[in-house]
Amino acid sequence: MDDGRRIERALDNAVAYAEAPGAPPRLAEAIRYAVFPGGHRIRPRLCLAVARACGDDDPRASDAAAAAIELLHCASLVHDDLPCFDDAAVRRQKPSVHVAYGEPVALLTGDALIVLAFETLARGAARSSGRLAALVGLVARAVGSPAGIAAGQAWESEPCVGLSQYQQAKTGALFAAATVAGAAAAGVEPLPWRLLGECLGEAYQVADDLRDVACRQEEVGKPVGRDATLGRPNAAALLGMEGALRRLEHLAHEAIEVIPPCPGAETLKAEVLAQTRLFLPARLTAGLAA
Amino acid sequence: MDDGRRIERALDNAVAYAEAPGAPPRLAEAIRYAVFPGGHRIRPRLCLAVARACGDDDPRASDAAAAAIELLHCASLVHDDLPCFDDAAVRRQKPSVHVAYGEPVALLTGDALIVLAFETLARGAARSSGRLAALVGLVARAVGSPAGIAAGQAWESEPCVGLSQYQQAKTGALFAAATVAGAAAAGVEPLPWRLLGECLGEAYQVADDLRDVACRQEEVGKPVGRDATLGRPNAAALLGMEGALRRLEHLAHEAIEVIPPCPGAETLKAEVLAQTRLFLPARLTAGLAA
Repeated sequence: MDDGRRIERALDNAVAYAEAPGAPPRLAEAIRYAVFPGGHRIRPRLCLAVARACGDDDPRASDAAAAAIELLHCASLVHDDLPCFDDAAVRRQKPSVHVAYGEPVALLTGDALIVLAFETLARGAARSSGRLAALVGLVARAVGSPAGIAAGQAWESEPCVGLSQYQQAKTGALFAAATVAGAAAAGVEPLPWRLLGECLGEAYQVADDLRDVACRQEEVGKPVGRDATLGRPNAAALLGMEGALRRLEHLAHEAIEVIPPCPGAETLKAEVLAQTRLFLPARLTAGLAA
Repeated sequence: MDDGRRIERALDNAVAYAEAPGAPPRLAEAIRYAVFPGGHRIRPRLCLAVARACGDDDPRASDAAAAAIELLHCASLVHDDLPCFDDAAVRRQKPSVHVAYGEPVALLTGDALIVLAFETLARGAARSSGRLAALVGLVARAVGSPAGIAAGQAWESEPCVGLSQYQQAKTGALFAAATVAGAAAAGVEPLPWRLLGECLGEAYQVADDLRDVACRQEEVGKPVGRDATLGRPNAAALLGMEGALRRLEHLAHEAIEVIPPCPGAETLKAEVLAQTRLFLPARLTAGLAA
């Protein structure tokens, strides 16, 4: 089964638990709406790619790790889109969750997705005791305080913000979690895998900044030009289009170089390069060296 | 060390992780503000009482379970108080989190507390492999969808609501989690302990209804008369004060009867009776048989 189908199946299995009989119908519907159809599923693909490079000796644990990371990503999108944050009406080419289901259900959808992520880990990684503790800890660190997604978002409410701290927490942490969780799910020491995730997280942030400046809403599925509107730092604005594209290319190659020694390193390198190509629409990557 | 100190210490240890260097200062402050000073800590006390009745052979796991349950309770209070739900300005005798720190930080505080609860479990129960998986699963079920706190709150957004389903999810689920998690933390089969938690959860709901009708804001630390204002069902309104007090007494005695056989059953019975006394101010319980 290819990774795309593995990920959709794992997510479908996870969401089915939250929709079980007795669930409030609108909440259950909103949870599925927030998860399907997805974007490129970049983070869970990265998680599975690392797990496979490390041997993937417990595929249920890897599936659970990949699904948990995507569920947490979806939760963060639902909460970020709320009126008190980005007040975004469109996400993944359709109305954002609070527009479709109202603010109370959207807030609870995010909460339920966070909980579901940890429940999914417990269900999928229960047989490998040490792995479950590692996975819960690594994944929690990527989404809570002091340095996960919630902390990243909270920097927007501080008078003084360190830009790299902000971006590392808001975007980088979940990429780093994808690589370390992939390794932990396969029973491999996770920490050497953090740098790969951090490189790719920064690359993704640069790509996101480029899309915000250079794409149309129809291409990216959400409003563009937001950074300028909201006065946020943007790599393309800081470095210029050409400079930001070169930075992205540099980070993608750096990512290849920091992959730790492992049985599937060569395949993983090819996968990482292919993945980073997906960060941007083809018309923008035409300028990148092959 | 008595249970009260055990609980405060476990919560302090947990919160310290979320405040570690690098955390956004206002988020870190809001997380501590949401957890301290607490209320009666009824749920973690119940969790520890059950763990002790079952032998409490891994106190770090019991502490983690108790702390996780209280962190999730605090998270639910922060989110419930938000303008899109109860819009409550006061909680535990002080401004609610969104009044003190603004809506964005309050929302993220709730998210971070949910994450911290699971992180705390992973840290405290890592050595007992099967126990961690059980604890994460049992606790997650109490707060997510289909039947946890998020689901309970979501019933308020549904056109048709089953009252018992609503109350069971919104209040009962976390009480049930307190008892089953206490048993699981001590390595005992958790499911026979669910009924005790369910009885106490229903008793607590009746007491909460009584306080809403019969207490002043200064006595309970939050606004009263909310059920009538918001058109919500209330046991004291339905059964009368006398009827609701009798129902509470009945549930407290039923709870005693459903305690499963265990080494510390007699002590636990006394503790449960003492706990249920705390559900109401003394002037209201004067009418209850001793």
